Amino acid sequence: MDTIDTKWIHGERFNVTYRITAADNKIAQQIAENICIEQTVEVPRSLIPAAPIGNWIIGNIEQFTQQATDTYQAIISYPVELAAGELPQLLNIILGNSSLIPSIRVDNVTLPPKLVAQFKGPRFGVAGWRKLLEAKSRPLLATAIKPVGLSIKSLVRLAYEMTLGGMDIIKDDHGLTNQPFGLYAERVTQVCAAVKRANMDTGGNTLYLPNITGPIEQLWERAKLAKQEGAGGLLVAPGLLGFDTMRALADDDTLALPIMAHPTFVGAFVANPSHGISHGILFGLLARLAGADATIFTNYGGRFAFSIEDCVSIATSCLEPITGLKTILPVPAGGMTFERIPNLHQTYGLDVIYLIGGALVEHSPDLVANCRFFRELVQQQVAQ
Amino acid sequence: MDTIDTKWIHGERFNVTYRITAADNKIAQQIAENICIEQTVEVPRSLIPAAPIGNWIIGNIEQFTQQATDTYQAIISYPVELAAGELPQLLNIILGNSSLIPSIRVDNVTLPPKLVAQFKGPRFGVAGWRKLLEAKSRPLLATAIKPVGLSIKSLVRLAYEMTLGGMDIIKDDHGLTNQPFGLYAERVTQVCAAVKRANMDTGGNTLYLPNITGPIEQLWERAKLAKQEGAGGLLVAPGLLGFDTMRALADDDTLALPIMAHPTFVGAFVANPSHGISHGILFGLLARLAGADATIFTNYGGRFAFSIEDCVSIATSCLEPITGLKTILPVPAGGMTFERIPNLHQTYGLDVIYLIGGALVEHSPDLVANCRFFRELVQQQVAQ
Repeated sequence: MDTIDTKWIHGERFNVTYRITAADNKIAQQIAENICIEQTVEVPRSLIPAAPIGNWIIGNIEQFTQQATDTYQAIISYPVELAAGELPQLLNIILGNSSLIPSIRVDNVTLPPKLVAQFKGPRFGVAGWRKLLEAKSRPLLATAIKPVGLSIKSLVRLAYEMTLGGMDIIKDDHGLTNQPFGLYAERVTQVCAAVKRANMDTGGNTLYLPNITGPIEQLWERAKLAKQEGAGGLLVAPGLLGFDTMRALADDDTLALPIMAHPTFVGAFVANPSHGISHGILFGLLARLAGADATIFTNYGGRFAFSIEDCVSIATSCLEPITGLKTILPVPAGGMTFERIPNLHQTYGLDVIYLIGGALVEHSPDLVANCRFFRELVQQQVAQ
Repeated sequence: MDTIDTKWIHGERFNVTYRITAADNKIAQQIAENICIEQTVEVPRSLIPAAPIGNWIIGNIEQFTQQATDTYQAIISYPVELAAGELPQLLNIILGNSSLIPSIRVDNVTLPPKLVAQFKGPRFGVAGWRKLLEAKSRPLLATAIKPVGLSIKSLVRLAYEMTLGGMDIIKDDHGLTNQPFGLYAERVTQVCAAVKRANMDTGGNTLYLPNITGPIEQLWERAKLAKQEGAGGLLVAPGLLGFDTMRALADDDTLALPIMAHPTFVGAFVANPSHGISHGILFGLLARLAGADATIFTNYGGRFAFSIEDCVSIATSCLEPITGLKTILPVPAGGMTFERIPNLHQTYGLDVIYLIGGALVEHSPDLVANCRFFRELVQQQVAQ
């Protein structure tokens, strides 16, 4: 059997850090060696030709250490060329078939500049949001229009009042799609117009982000309608559409709108510390590489299961400098309340989008006043 | 706040069976009630208007039972209209945000004919494969060309010999994409030609399924090239591309090729019995609804973690009659060997595709003979 020409071998590799749960060192070593094969050539060892497959294409264990009882860490490298400059194939190498093995978790991913340069990443990033919103150095304030089942008129009214109240970002609830009783085109056209009107009243820059998540044949149509009607960005669920679809939306120069990633349907990756992908990598680095300008995740202490350490790791992965890849804003959400703002400010600092939905509406019957209260509360924290 | 007009309420609902892990009945009940809200309106209970949102749109607990210590089962129904006839939104309702809660697992999904009718489902299904392959009632035999790093010439030769040997289906390894050292167009064009040549020699009908999984902008281009060059089907990874993208490929009348779904990157959903989605629903019903004609999963007793019960539940979900949705073929794979065929025949019977990769090449230096041996082995089982 002929292998590929060795002229293709350049030697640059990217590293994936795996957490391996195993009863002893020998078993963990064996799992690490299996990952090297499973994520690349996927044939029995006896069938792997020596070079360049056996010494370049297959994964290489760069470091192997015991971390705790039953927990080991293997840093495995892969050649940059194997990813073919394609996000699906990069994800395939990082976790792919090993996602089917409950004792393997991706704890970290380190990409060399050559690989990062193959992806455009976020179009706007932290600086882009700040420019659009004329908000130099403060937390941004976001909320959502919901629940599904309200008339479009009511959703429009909510968006109008939220804009008057000075919210930076208003997103659709991710359950609003194109239901027969609430058609996408009708909702988005009317909400865009209302937000525009209210922005003119206030002189503000509120951005409305419709949820474009829908059938792939209609996705670009929905995004284009949003663009045409003056939407300020797009809400996209990579768990439902695939990370690469979000990447393509971000890369599309005819859209050129900031993207907020929604975490629906990706939770299984982070639900168990012994498998899947770490919170920071999934909601931080991978969302960033896939073009998200902001990434929603479920905040600690709310109605979900993330710990404060999980949340900080996400914020860190969003904001860590990486050459060629813009930093993005973490968006803690999910049962957030006003009382928690001081604590959250300690945790997240200035580079964050606070997403408060239900509590903003529940606070008092005057939604405009509630929004202003939210804004002042955050300003007080910043001023302290 | 106005809600939608009650004229939209038709009353048909679909059921999702959740497995809830909780310390006691009261906590489990609370989790079930939270699912009803989380998967639909996602606002605090105080903000849910009575009708039609509070009595129709939000999830309804149809049945709640304790299954074992710490394990409860809630069957929750949702209105068909909430899914908007869209696969991403249907998945969003079924698991969506609840994927972020480690104690919730989707054990079953029951869809009424009205909802099923909104999806075309598999174009070929079991009967379609059998017609294409002129194989009325026997297990089908599949293998893969690999490893990545072989020259295209070598991959072509493998495919040629596998066709001579009488394999029904030859797929690309899912790690073969469009690497600079093995371009998609070059590989697919040459392999298609070789398989065609060998089919003419043997009078057989071997189908070659290239792996089209790649960047979304190039996906249809790759699929069309495959079609044009005479490929017999497409290998698609819904975990990397999204289930809806696979659905769109299946629905495309200009392609009209059978689709084999690959399980890479979806393993996190099934890795833990207390969260995610059950094996049968993920690899069976959802793959089927998303247009797969065959669904690869990792077989019991191989190098992966699925139990025989998991595998049987997948086969059952593939083959269970559902009005308006063709049955599809389960494809056990992952470290399969010849010795296991008698046992596998007991488990899977006639409606199955056996996918044997490495072991087929390893068996002896004569690949054509190995394929014939594989075929005879299966025929012996069927004849018994």
